[in-house]
Parts: sequence; structure tokens; C-alpha cells
Amino acid sequence: MIGKLFLVGLGPGDPGMQTPQATAALSVATDLVGYGPYVDRVPPRPGLVRHVSDNREEISRARHALELAASGRRVTVVSSGDTGVFAMASAVFEAIEHGDTAWRGIDVEVIPGISAMFAVAARVGAPLGHDFCALSLSDNLKPWEVVTRRLRAVADAGFVIALYNPISRARPWQLGAAFALLRDILPPATPVVFATAVSRSDEAVTVVSLADADPARADMRTLVLIGSAATRRIERASAPPWLYTPRSVDAA
Amino acid sequence: MIGKLFLVGLGPGDPGMQTPQATAALSVATDLVGYGPYVDRVPPRPGLVRHVSDNREEISRARHALELAASGRRVTVVSSGDTGVFAMASAVFEAIEHGDTAWRGIDVEVIPGISAMFAVAARVGAPLGHDFCALSLSDNLKPWEVVTRRLRAVADAGFVIALYNPISRARPWQLGAAFALLRDILPPATPVVFATAVSRSDEAVTVVSLADADPARADMRTLVLIGSAATRRIERASAPPWLYTPRSVDAA
Repeated sequence: MIGKLFLVGLGPGDPGMQTPQATAALSVATDLVGYGPYVDRVPPRPGLVRHVSDNREEISRARHALELAASGRRVTVVSSGDTGVFAMASAVFEAIEHGDTAWRGIDVEVIPGISAMFAVAARVGAPLGHDFCALSLSDNLKPWEVVTRRLRAVADAGFVIALYNPISRARPWQLGAAFALLRDILPPATPVVFATAVSRSDEAVTVVSLADADPARADMRTLVLIGSAATRRIERASAPPWLYTPRSVDAA
Repeated sequence: MIGKLFLVGLGPGDPGMQTPQATAALSVATDLVGYGPYVDRVPPRPGLVRHVSDNREEISRARHALELAASGRRVTVVSSGDTGVFAMASAVFEAIEHGDTAWRGIDVEVIPGISAMFAVAARVGAPLGHDFCALSLSDNLKPWEVVTRRLRAVADAGFVIALYNPISRARPWQLGAAFALLRDILPPATPVVFATAVSRSDEAVTVVSLADADPARADMRTLVLIGSAATRRIERASAPPWLYTPRSVDAA
């Protein structure tokens, strides 16, 4: 093995959700590689070189990290949430597959983290309590027809749906189109959660119905969670409702 | 609010994957409630009363925890992995919905954990790097027809699939039936991961092809992960292959 590359998920933001394994990987790294806001979450320390890059530069960032590791450095690539879920791990392995064959000899260690959908689910109850899926709504890297086909398939089949990358300045209409599509399949009362900056100081979590779901509630830091027809809403006197998806499914 | 109830996910087993939030909840609890092997993972401490119950007693366990919390105790219900993913959180909210209305006044705090599928994915690369789903293969609480309909839907639509509860003594044939169904949809070379006791001392992780997937490799502690047609396998000279699912999807 040459060099060492840690792919680390930092969790959604609250240090209380960052695992000891992630903290340990950060403590032995010589080089820290990642998107600026994620690198900023790691305290500086003598001997730790920081390599900051912009969003949407995943493959060049991955190659840079692999070059550093291949040169013998101990490199940690940081992502928010879980590095294996719509984050850097896939980009690094893609770079390995298409890159220098020597990179296959790098000691790569992937360290999972708490992905946003689990932090969001925990805030509102247990909406992911039965079968669920995670789907990126971005059509930057896949055709919109694939997104809609997948959405239809999972909504029809009764999965709870976590939508990552629901909206951005360059993709303003897709979330509204997704809600319109889902309204043809799911009951109007199906709960929808908009969760922005979960576990951070400016966290905002709102539960609405699919009928009332307004895409304008979402921004680039929002995860949108859509219940199935089975997802239940427990009303409370002086607090927001709890949501949960029962473990039992009746015959279709 | 009356009483306090923490629903805690301990992660898959390695203490390095247990979050500081989970550790903090355990440190302030007066009562620990859960399935024996999970309660055993929490070190004893003066003042901490342990309430151990058998597997498959989720609802009575949930009611017991709610009664303790409603009486003013600080109760922690522990699950392996993430408590919101095929674990105790859904059972507790189900018990609340159908139980004493006073239980809606309990201060319930859900603390997410690293679910098995993320620990497994991290061991083999980044197979959950694009759209994926989690599906319980158990037909104890849902009709088998619902399981097969869901499997077909997600395999057809290109999701990577994590199968929880793939097999048990009482459900010996379902995993084989699932593989047979998937062989009609996915290419024979589609990677399948069998991961047993991930992150523990007796961990066993094997990557095979769908054509060669033998249900006898799985037991009650196994998570089975099935790639999509897009999932890639990176061969290495002297180590098991890495798997990853690319971030890009070509037109269907």
C-alpha cells in the first residue's frame, strides 16, 4: 500500500453527530481536502495542510487528493453527512477507476457519517421507520426522465422518499414538477418535511401536506422528505406533530 | 412535558461509530430499555437500571419505556444501527399513537446512528453513491406480495438496494426468491455484498455476482446489498475489489 486516504463524513453539522472514527481520522491527517464550508468545520492544527476547492469540482478534487496520497501523504477528504451518500466517496472511486493504476494501491478507508435524512427523520419522529429511498433530484448528472421514472416507481410502490439536492439557482423548477407528479400518486394529506440546515444554529424544519407543499420553502441546504400513504401524523397540544411510518404494511 | 425518553441508535457495533450524542444520552439516563444484546453494549453504571427484553417484543417494550418516562424517569431505548431504520423508534411512536394520550406530552428525543448499510457500504467502497433504497425483506409484518412488488419497482428503476432482515429460521426461502426475481431484471454480473456483523470482531464481508449469490451466505446478522446495473467493480491486485455507483446516469 502507498499513502493513506480517509474519506470522511462529518455528519450534518452538530459536532455531537460526528463519530469518534471521523474525529480520529482528522487527527492523524497531514492534508485536508474538501469544499470550503466543510473544511471550515475542522479546527486548524499545526501540521495539517488545508486544500479548499469550490462546489461542483468533485472529480478534480478527488484526483488532487489521490495524487497527494500517492505521494505518501495521509489525506482526509471531508464531506458533510455521509461521504458515501451523494458526496465525495463515489467521485474518488470514479477517479481511481479512470486514473493512474498505481492509485489502486492506495490504502483507502471510508468512514461513514450521519446523513442528512437521518438527522431530519430524528427531528420529526420516525418517518423512515419502514421501507424508504434516497433520490437526488438534480438533473445535472442524470436525465430528468430518469428522475421522474424513479420518483414514480418508488411513490407507486409505497417507499418513503428522501430528496437530496431538491433545488438550486440553476434548477429552479424541478422540485415543483416533482410535487406535481407525486400529487397524482399519493394522497393530498401525505406529510412532506422541509428541513434546512438541520442540526445547525439556523435549522428550520417544517411539516406540511403534499397538497400544500410549496417548492419556495426549499433552498440548496434543504432536504425534502416525503411520506408514503402509510406515514402517520401524531398531533400534539403544544408542539409540532410527530411523524412515523409503521412497521406493518397491510395487503395492497 | 413529563418525563424524558431518548431513542438512541448505537451504530453497528464498533464504539468508534457511536456518536457523542448517543454517548451523552446514555450518560444521563436512569433507565435503559432494549433487546438484550444491545443493552449489553452499554457499560453498567451506578444509578442506571437495565430493562432487557427479547427480540420481537417491540411494542410491549415501547409501552414499558413510555410508562417509565411518564412516571418521571429519564429513559433511553437503545437500538443497533439507527433507531429510526427498521428499529425501535417506529414502534415507540406507534405505541404513543395508540396509547395513553398523556404520552404525547413526553419529551421524546430521537438520536440517529450509523445504520448497517452505511457501515457496509464504507467497507466495500461507495456502492450507495447514487440513488438507493432500504427494504426489509421480512414478511412478518407485510405481505410477501408487497415485498416483491417493491423489489421489482426499485430494481427496474435503477436503485441500489439494501436488504434488511434478509433471512431467519422462520423465513428461510425469501432471500432466494428475491435473488431469483432480481435475476430477471438485473445483469448477472451485478455485484451483491453479503455483510455479517459489520464492524465487529467476527465481521465477514463478501462480494459476489448476482448470478452466484447464494442465500446460505446470510444469517440474521447479515445485511445484503445489491448493486444497480450501473454499479462498478474496481479490481485490485492483492485486495478485494472496490464497488461504487457513479454519480452520473446515462439516458435510459
